[in-house]
Amino acid sequence: MKRFTRDGNLDEKAALLSGATAWTTTPVDRLGIPSIVLTDGPHGVRLEKPDSERFSFENSFPATCFPTAAALGSSWDPDLLTRIGEALGREGRALGVNVLLGPGVNIKRSPLCGRNFEYLSEDPYLTGRLGAALVRGVQSQGVGASVKHFAANNQETERLRVSAEVDERTLREIYLPAFEHIVTEAKPWTVMAAYNRINGVHATQNRWLLTQVLREEWGFDGLVVSDWCAVTDPVEAVTAGLDLEMPANAGSPGRLVTAVREGRLDEALLDRAVDRVLALIERAQPANGSPDFEAHHALARQAAAESAVLLKNEGALLPLAPGTRVAVFGETHRHQGAGSSKIVPTRLDRAVDHLEIAEIAADADVAVLFLGLPEGEESEGFDRTHIDLPADQIRLLEEVAAVHPNTVVVLANGGVVRTGDWERHATAVLEMWLPGQAGGAAVADLLYGRVNPSGRLAETIPLRLPDTPAYLDFPGSEGAVRYGERLYVGYRHHDARDLDVAYPFGHGLSYTTFEYSDLDVTGLTVEVTVTNTGDRPGKEVVQLYVRDVESTVDRPVRELKGFRKVHLEPAESKRVTFIIQPRDLCFYSVAREDWVQETGDFEFSVGASSRDLRLSATVHIAGPEDTTPLTLANTLAEWLADPRGAAVVGEMAELGDPQIRAMVEHLPLDRLIAMSNGRIDAARFV
Amino acid sequence: MKRFTRDGNLDEKAALLSGATAWTTTPVDRLGIPSIVLTDGPHGVRLEKPDSERFSFENSFPATCFPTAAALGSSWDPDLLTRIGEALGREGRALGVNVLLGPGVNIKRSPLCGRNFEYLSEDPYLTGRLGAALVRGVQSQGVGASVKHFAANNQETERLRVSAEVDERTLREIYLPAFEHIVTEAKPWTVMAAYNRINGVHATQNRWLLTQVLREEWGFDGLVVSDWCAVTDPVEAVTAGLDLEMPANAGSPGRLVTAVREGRLDEALLDRAVDRVLALIERAQPANGSPDFEAHHALARQAAAESAVLLKNEGALLPLAPGTRVAVFGETHRHQGAGSSKIVPTRLDRAVDHLEIAEIAADADVAVLFLGLPEGEESEGFDRTHIDLPADQIRLLEEVAAVHPNTVVVLANGGVVRTGDWERHATAVLEMWLPGQAGGAAVADLLYGRVNPSGRLAETIPLRLPDTPAYLDFPGSEGAVRYGERLYVGYRHHDARDLDVAYPFGHGLSYTTFEYSDLDVTGLTVEVTVTNTGDRPGKEVVQLYVRDVESTVDRPVRELKGFRKVHLEPAESKRVTFIIQPRDLCFYSVAREDWVQETGDFEFSVGASSRDLRLSATVHIAGPEDTTPLTLANTLAEWLADPRGAAVVGEMAELGDPQIRAMVEHLPLDRLIAMSNGRIDAARFV
Repeated sequence: MKRFTRDGNLDEKAALLSGATAWTTTPVDRLGIPSIVLTDGPHGVRLEKPDSERFSFENSFPATCFPTAAALGSSWDPDLLTRIGEALGREGRALGVNVLLGPGVNIKRSPLCGRNFEYLSEDPYLTGRLGAALVRGVQSQGVGASVKHFAANNQETERLRVSAEVDERTLREIYLPAFEHIVTEAKPWTVMAAYNRINGVHATQNRWLLTQVLREEWGFDGLVVSDWCAVTDPVEAVTAGLDLEMPANAGSPGRLVTAVREGRLDEALLDRAVDRVLALIERAQPANGSPDFEAHHALARQAAAESAVLLKNEGALLPLAPGTRVAVFGETHRHQGAGSSKIVPTRLDRAVDHLEIAEIAADADVAVLFLGLPEGEESEGFDRTHIDLPADQIRLLEEVAAVHPNTVVVLANGGVVRTGDWERHATAVLEMWLPGQAGGAAVADLLYGRVNPSGRLAETIPLRLPDTPAYLDFPGSEGAVRYGERLYVGYRHHDARDLDVAYPFGHGLSYTTFEYSDLDVTGLTVEVTVTNTGDRPGKEVVQLYVRDVESTVDRPVRELKGFRKVHLEPAESKRVTFIIQPRDLCFYSVAREDWVQETGDFEFSVGASSRDLRLSATVHIAGPEDTTPLTLANTLAEWLADPRGAAVVGEMAELGDPQIRAMVEHLPLDRLIAMSNGRIDAARFV
Repeated sequence: MKRFTRDGNLDEKAALLSGATAWTTTPVDRLGIPSIVLTDGPHGVRLEKPDSERFSFENSFPATCFPTAAALGSSWDPDLLTRIGEALGREGRALGVNVLLGPGVNIKRSPLCGRNFEYLSEDPYLTGRLGAALVRGVQSQGVGASVKHFAANNQETERLRVSAEVDERTLREIYLPAFEHIVTEAKPWTVMAAYNRINGVHATQNRWLLTQVLREEWGFDGLVVSDWCAVTDPVEAVTAGLDLEMPANAGSPGRLVTAVREGRLDEALLDRAVDRVLALIERAQPANGSPDFEAHHALARQAAAESAVLLKNEGALLPLAPGTRVAVFGETHRHQGAGSSKIVPTRLDRAVDHLEIAEIAADADVAVLFLGLPEGEESEGFDRTHIDLPADQIRLLEEVAAVHPNTVVVLANGGVVRTGDWERHATAVLEMWLPGQAGGAAVADLLYGRVNPSGRLAETIPLRLPDTPAYLDFPGSEGAVRYGERLYVGYRHHDARDLDVAYPFGHGLSYTTFEYSDLDVTGLTVEVTVTNTGDRPGKEVVQLYVRDVESTVDRPVRELKGFRKVHLEPAESKRVTFIIQPRDLCFYSVAREDWVQETGDFEFSVGASSRDLRLSATVHIAGPEDTTPLTLANTLAEWLADPRGAAVVGEMAELGDPQIRAMVEHLPLDRLIAMSNGRIDAARFV
């Protein structure tokens, strides 16, 4: 039974389609339609205090600051993301928040993107699974999620004007699948249309994106909200399928009304948006509950530890034995990024308070250095220009390492940093990302082995910036950025160009060891046994990569199509099963406007990273038959290659001179017929 | 006084717009309009014998086979190209040829392109200068040239169907400038429209290309002929600006007539093409003269020697002293490529006949190995799939080098081959390319120092195929190939990505040495002194590269903008002067639809290769003032950066919190105003 129906007048309806304030929708008191609250953000609830004189990211209610997405992506643990989602939902619900603006599921196209800390991975499969898990968690508490930023919002530079020039196959295979998976599997209440343009058309005004793909193809039945201030033309936006412009924009309702009156906007399109706004308000739940901030802090601590990636651990320096005397160097670690996702935390753990520290540094058994990107080097709003640690930090490392043979570097950074030049000075390197308010305690948990590291890189650490896929095309110029690298983003690029990397996608060490055995591929089921061969409990992230061995189109060398995080006691074995979906074998065919699974050999590889593949099997898999008819636009070679065509072409195949054959066989048949001066009769090919 | 005027009836006019046979235009006897002859090709006249029963590339009149374009490009010598053009013109004129189908000036986008041997360089500046020189030579003899293949015909795979997806800036800066230079400076009689599509539209049906750019912008007043069998729709072609379809196509005249009668083709457009065909026939000259084939053979020998690139010469093994006993290994060298450019040579020099050869191999002082790409590994009609020498050749080299400490490798290949794996076995490496019928004698001239090598690489020799710019985008799929590397072709790519190469663009050794001194940059004039510091006469190719130090758009690290081949006696010095054109400092602005020269520092470097720059100077050069007005679509940062804007913006620049400033300053002003809820008045910015 609907509480709200569309019976307002044109002014009232138009008013519903943009905000009343920065974070609330417009109520219609006459009809009893209330205002609802949408607010940031993806790893914590940032609700502004009502008494704010002047806008500031610091002036908001305290909330648990969970690890940022760059960290959570490295957990490879959907269950963890769901539990964090539930906590976010509870905190939002308690504060009267109806829609939480997250998760951010844009693909990390370049390590320079200033907002990479808010995104999960360079891989769409991993991003989709983790994003869906978070959405499920948030929405289980009666708070809607807003999957953002839809789509191809992969840089901060010129983000409100730039056009991402991306071919459709790349959009379909790289930049859209995470959204598609989340929309179809987790049913988010809302999707947020991005700031940027896509192939010239603003995301907020992009009918292909917001209506054809999102609703008609994926079946999305929720609401599309604009990113804040993203709308340039509200009439175009409503026409394209945008439902709600945020925040308040005094001019928009009037422009909509005028457009309807002048016949430039079909009132049915306006009504469609109004219905969706009303449906969202319908779903909105009243404030309720009182979160257990202690429990959430504990969850944040666990999440930070699960998300940390142990990059290097020479001579098994880590874990430290109890009683090890530690000297600590370096500045206070950052725990979150800057911009709209910035949380006022309920409390803040400092790592230094959780280590047993040596009185005199030279006395210590182990030196621990806290390094990373300083505040101001990365943020929403601008992109980075390099991926180096500050020079003074590297100098400090060199000085410390010269004195301490056992030096552990603990990193805090949202965007990836290059390790190539300095890591030889470090015996061990632990990447914490921006680990949230409990990150400090998590560092201690990891260093002392109370938690065994189980994070895996969700993005490649390159040797050098010029090796990265978008290097020649970031951040674009004159209002456009061309995605010239196409599909070859992240490890897809490094693998295709056969480039060495510092640490590959999927890499991460543990304090124990794992062995893989008994790979079995039957039909589309892949099974493998994983055994903990060390002496500590630990978690392995079993990764499945698929390779199309032969294809009519270029494809990545390998693509992640399954992963499972498994806990194993020492000597314990588990059988891990992956069910491959036919779609996981497909490429997107622009010619056929559909996903295409070609018959042929596929290689399935399982392992501990994209470059540490332990077992592989190649199997022949039959796809649907290609029934595209042969025409005179097909080449002689294509007619000959097809059993239906070879019989018809007949003696034309008998081209004596191989040089002439080489020139002729790739001619479309109609040109060959035109050239033949009547010697070949077109009629026989029809 | 025109001999031919357009007074035929519609059928007669339509008939003029396609061929009568494979190589002749359609005559109109009633009006006394003769047929003229257009034939291949770029490095020799390939005129089919009239008695040919079945088509074969071998059944043509003997003609001098000059070095292929891959070789001539390496000569860096416009005067040489002009003399070869003159010889081609004389041989064509003698045979009654009216238009010679060349030069081929497509840019070497990928080393895999099967037709690279017919193209000059990876660099548009070098290609344009050499191509113009050849055209001038041919046309000086009363024979027209046909500059081909216009445009973006950079692969053989799917060449009749593929769409080259190239952004306009890349077309303007990389793929069009050679055509532009030749059209504006050498006034070719004809331009040949290519097989492929460009951004979806067939080159033969591309109005933007054939009319807007070629005629309206560049002022071309000649005829546009199709590549053979390139036309799919003659009506679309004539509409777009194609004048002559070749070869004969029985259906085309009727289609044109019908289209005019049905009102689908404006007869004025057809008349325009007819006028251009008549103008070409007007220009055609009767057969005349009898070429001096001995003199042309000598020119071919000189050209082959001037074009050879001495890649490596350890311990100055070369030149060989007279009397050196040489053992020769390897197969007979290829001297030309396969496909439509294939010439029946007037004679053929074999290198083996020109070396003094040791009776017993083990007795020899020096081993000379002839290696290269076998017939069948490269040709018009298909692309290569790798850039390696055949494995059996490398094995032979290893075996010979194991016995002979002094081993010289002489290479013959049209497309570039990788040297990385095997060159350590060779003391010296001499790259001959496909050197034409006198290449064998030229090898001996070079090895014995009768000619001092002076060729320079017109294309980069990469370390590995995956390092090459188009590696991830060649040859495309599903009928399209995306030029994702954009401007970064050839050395522009290797420099931008800071990749090591085997041998850089511009590299080539000499038997003498050169020093650079006294670089002076005054205004747009660059002068430098070059001195022969060795003990033999020799030629240096002085190369000028320009770098835009700071730019609002991404630009290549350096670009060739001048070169001069200078002959110097031992101890002789010459002052070389380059006059920079303002256009040489520009980028193509898609936003402004024009070339833009920005005010700022430019670095001018001179040297012996793109990576052997000897002297550099940076000067400040003022460009035209940018008068684009500031609007509300400009960001706050742009208003602040502009002296006109800063005053207006005023106190808005006072944004306290640097984090908020980072988020706000890149907002377009109209969004900022919308966000301000009336606190900012839009009126002040108008």
